[in-house]
Amino acid sequence: MTTPASKPLDPSPRVLLGPGPSNVPPRVLSALGMPPVGHLDPEFVALMDEMQGMLRRVFRTENPMTLAVSGTGSAGMEAVVANLVEPGDRMLVCVNGVFGGRMVDVAGRCGAEVSRIDRPWGEVFDPSEVEAAIKAHRPKLVGIVHAETSTGALQPVDEIARIAHENGALLAIDAVTSLAGVPVEVDGWDVDAVYSGTQKCLSCPPGLAPVSFGPRAMEAIKARKTKVQSWYLDMTLIGRYWGSDRLYHHTAPINMNYALREALAIVLEEGLDARFARHLLNAQALAAGLKAMGIDYVPAEGHRLPQLNCVTIPEGVDDLAVRKRLLSEWNVEIGGGLGDLKGKAWRIGLMGYGSRRESVTLVLSALETCLRDAGAPVEPGAALASSAEVYAGSPAASTA
Amino acid sequence: MTTPASKPLDPSPRVLLGPGPSNVPPRVLSALGMPPVGHLDPEFVALMDEMQGMLRRVFRTENPMTLAVSGTGSAGMEAVVANLVEPGDRMLVCVNGVFGGRMVDVAGRCGAEVSRIDRPWGEVFDPSEVEAAIKAHRPKLVGIVHAETSTGALQPVDEIARIAHENGALLAIDAVTSLAGVPVEVDGWDVDAVYSGTQKCLSCPPGLAPVSFGPRAMEAIKARKTKVQSWYLDMTLIGRYWGSDRLYHHTAPINMNYALREALAIVLEEGLDARFARHLLNAQALAAGLKAMGIDYVPAEGHRLPQLNCVTIPEGVDDLAVRKRLLSEWNVEIGGGLGDLKGKAWRIGLMGYGSRRESVTLVLSALETCLRDAGAPVEPGAALASSAEVYAGSPAASTA
Repeated sequence: MTTPASKPLDPSPRVLLGPGPSNVPPRVLSALGMPPVGHLDPEFVALMDEMQGMLRRVFRTENPMTLAVSGTGSAGMEAVVANLVEPGDRMLVCVNGVFGGRMVDVAGRCGAEVSRIDRPWGEVFDPSEVEAAIKAHRPKLVGIVHAETSTGALQPVDEIARIAHENGALLAIDAVTSLAGVPVEVDGWDVDAVYSGTQKCLSCPPGLAPVSFGPRAMEAIKARKTKVQSWYLDMTLIGRYWGSDRLYHHTAPINMNYALREALAIVLEEGLDARFARHLLNAQALAAGLKAMGIDYVPAEGHRLPQLNCVTIPEGVDDLAVRKRLLSEWNVEIGGGLGDLKGKAWRIGLMGYGSRRESVTLVLSALETCLRDAGAPVEPGAALASSAEVYAGSPAASTA
Repeated sequence: MTTPASKPLDPSPRVLLGPGPSNVPPRVLSALGMPPVGHLDPEFVALMDEMQGMLRRVFRTENPMTLAVSGTGSAGMEAVVANLVEPGDRMLVCVNGVFGGRMVDVAGRCGAEVSRIDRPWGEVFDPSEVEAAIKAHRPKLVGIVHAETSTGALQPVDEIARIAHENGALLAIDAVTSLAGVPVEVDGWDVDAVYSGTQKCLSCPPGLAPVSFGPRAMEAIKARKTKVQSWYLDMTLIGRYWGSDRLYHHTAPINMNYALREALAIVLEEGLDARFARHLLNAQALAAGLKAMGIDYVPAEGHRLPQLNCVTIPEGVDDLAVRKRLLSEWNVEIGGGLGDLKGKAWRIGLMGYGSRRESVTLVLSALETCLRDAGAPVEPGAALASSAEVYAGSPAASTA
């Protein structure tokens, strides 16, 4: 017996060059589709140990409490905030895009007394202004977005970590879009808590949130007077399952963990530094091509994420029409702007597995056609030639 | 370059006959491993619509707010409780196993004034005692576990729903283990909120939590004076993404939704009633075999879940030794007891795809060997013969 529901699933072969999810390597998809074992099976328990080791290498940390929370990146944000603040605790959030704004919302729901400082979208914070706010508000926790997915801005955080600690505060960072695309030095920068997602530069499907908590953060959790308001995201309970107790908490998403394990293995086989260099090279090639078409970036030079290129839509070009056309004619997905940047910006992701020369060539070429058809003054072939020059000039071009 | 991390993932071919996860059909694994599209891709949006329709059929409801929360069954529990209670609201929880106890914990963390009534593990509640507690405590919300995964007990809830409504309370049920294995009549029983998991009788890997909220529950959510404490699980925000607004909330776990879509299609192709009959038949065959080996059930007859058979470990038999042997020699996983039943009970799951004659035959035969080797007075072949009699006497045997 068949019903309309039984039509086979047959997703189009999208080239995912938006803000995530990114394309997933066949090895990861293959791992994802392997038959599950139980969540307390010795084989799964061994896989958890292996994953913790791999996550520590990717986060560049030795934090014991490093694992994958069973939800997407936003669950990671909530896990970090809900475990580190108790009702009445003060939290300072630095907001320069959607995800800083989300952190304010999450912190308020956790009962924190939230103060915020703001920067226009696309800009980053100067350590001195964060310092002033910390001194004024005396927060227990400072939250800042390392890689703002809504603006493509890269926020340096090492100096801010130092300032937070000098003033008795903890620092939590959002590394959803940065992890495995640009350096995230959890121990090197002395970050107290960090969360990420799987569907960006790790090139694993969305569904898990790698997190890491440092010694100060663990002290703060131990010193809590109240239970963490989320049972599902209570790191102490989760840690007893991932740790040597193996105490059942919830049924782990077995297959998503298979996939993340494989994605982490691929990252470590390539090597983090080689991976960062690859992201940078392809972003430079993309930038050269976009420049040749007269397209500017939203963030200032020096604060741009190579994996997420947030650019201004040229005057007179219809955002939605171009994005629909890219999707329907080339199977290419790029992202639109969010919030303040809605209708004004595109977000072109070159993340993880998607950070390849063929992605750059395809998106530049398709965009050129769309822009020329929209009447923009774009010289034929200029984008492609400019990006080719970058590859030609790079010693890493052949491995990119 | 390779590292130890690159050893290929190669999970053993487990026969998952525990309390979940259950084995997953190849069609579902294949869907899971398909390349992702974006979370706002028209194809994914259409898939969400299709899934909502399928989930309504499986829950037997017309509730618009019926969807899959991006976390495991426990996230579903938290979503239901956190959206329906505000700090200071009264909630009554009926506890006769681990998951009722978990609901008390979750409710307390949500700021509810929680009262509880208890029954020994393996027993079920009589509507009259729930009524007395409702009249005494006047809760806004009553929570009860329909299928208690820790004891294998099936709790009738239709009468309790009527009583709750007569007394101005909402009823939320835990259908993690029941959905698609025994009837869950959300509209027929007039249940206000329900949550489930994917890894039991839906035979999809763990990672999503199907939920449904009825009209009274939606009214209660609209009438809230405070924000839902969890941003990630705020049903109003999630509903705007699943609903016609398509407002971005979090990046949906694309591939897990592919898998659930396929799992739901399989359920609907078989037909719910046929699926329930299949679960019942295989459970009867298992029960006959277990009885022939002198093994008793924890719950009383009439309150046993066909998909999760919670049985007493025979005197003198070492729980862990048998379970380790089943796993290492036959690749068979069964569950041990939790909490009050630790070391005293086994939980044998025949869930979804795993509810098949070959599962029954394998687990009975392997158990017979283990019990005989442990010195239990088990007659060779008796279990197999007794189970075969059940299949021979069943008109449905050939399709089971």
